[in-house]
Amino acid sequence: MSFLTQLDWRFATKKFDPEKKLSDESVGKILEAIRMAPTSYGLQPFHVLVVTDSETKKKLQAASYGQPQPADASHVLVFFSRTDILDRVDAYVKLATGEDPVSSEKAVKMLEMFRKMAGRYEGEAGREWTAKQAYIALGFALAAAAELEVDSCPMEGCDFAAIKGIFNLPEIFTPVLLLPLGYRAEGSSRSKTRFSKEDLFTEV
Amino acid sequence: MSFLTQLDWRFATKKFDPEKKLSDESVGKILEAIRMAPTSYGLQPFHVLVVTDSETKKKLQAASYGQPQPADASHVLVFFSRTDILDRVDAYVKLATGEDPVSSEKAVKMLEMFRKMAGRYEGEAGREWTAKQAYIALGFALAAAAELEVDSCPMEGCDFAAIKGIFNLPEIFTPVLLLPLGYRAEGSSRSKTRFSKEDLFTEV
Repeated sequence: MSFLTQLDWRFATKKFDPEKKLSDESVGKILEAIRMAPTSYGLQPFHVLVVTDSETKKKLQAASYGQPQPADASHVLVFFSRTDILDRVDAYVKLATGEDPVSSEKAVKMLEMFRKMAGRYEGEAGREWTAKQAYIALGFALAAAAELEVDSCPMEGCDFAAIKGIFNLPEIFTPVLLLPLGYRAEGSSRSKTRFSKEDLFTEV
Repeated sequence: MSFLTQLDWRFATKKFDPEKKLSDESVGKILEAIRMAPTSYGLQPFHVLVVTDSETKKKLQAASYGQPQPADASHVLVFFSRTDILDRVDAYVKLATGEDPVSSEKAVKMLEMFRKMAGRYEGEAGREWTAKQAYIALGFALAAAAELEVDSCPMEGCDFAAIKGIFNLPEIFTPVLLLPLGYRAEGSSRSKTRFSKEDLFTEV
């Protein structure tokens, strides 16, 4: 099975079969895809909670205006962006320095640069920028799930203030996305509408 | 070849071989992955220019502070978010109505909802939200490229005002990402640093 042969197979699954659970192997592969996704400057400014606890999944359902996916899915990934950018750059430098000289040299320059323009990554601008990095990782998670024939439903229409309250992580973490994972219920509708190539692409 | 077996193979390619070009088949598959990527409400609020013209690629290099990737790559995808949301919802309704009843009914409700809360999708908030949808499609493009053994380098550190000037599209389109695609030059450095699983994930 490959991602490209699964493009039409995947869809935003609304009804999961609550009895069917992901194997540890499948979960591990999806998390590894998230970990290997590229992000701006390699900072990976996010954290992902991997929720299987049924009480917590019910709370996520309530915070999703009662939509059934978070409660019925086998696993729910909760993506938080993290806005402690200077600390994150610092951690990145330490990590890269232990590896190869190219990374190390780049990392030191990067830290200088971020210190100079820290203002650009604070407040709302920083939250938006770090959230976008989580969206790339979401793309990788969805691609990995499709290849594994695991169903998924990306959700951004949730009460994220309520989700923040469920987990009560430090202030630097802001929930931005839910990704329920599992297996579609039998007979679940899989309508999919896409704009045409002509609408989306222009050759230059 | 599959996406998951290529996670470590792919990296942000800085030096492309300017002589090596993508086949039409590979380009077509990558664009199809973008087209099939999920987006919020299915709106696909973006447009992608597929640039092969060498003069235009040189202009993109200048707008990327002289970084060589846009000029050396075989193809450069320029992702624009589009903020004409109510028109887009309208187009989506027309598209879905021709398909199945479930999509059609959903689309009509969606249009009502968007009309009520149009303010949330105007101005800066709208630009950020639509840009995020392009980032999901970017993830799909990167996954497709990796599966095809095509090299890529996502770029968001560009002078997007200059890029806007190169193409002069209508005001609703805002450039948000470049994605050079091609084949790595021999001997190009492929350093990659990633945070650990422990840093990125927590089980709940």
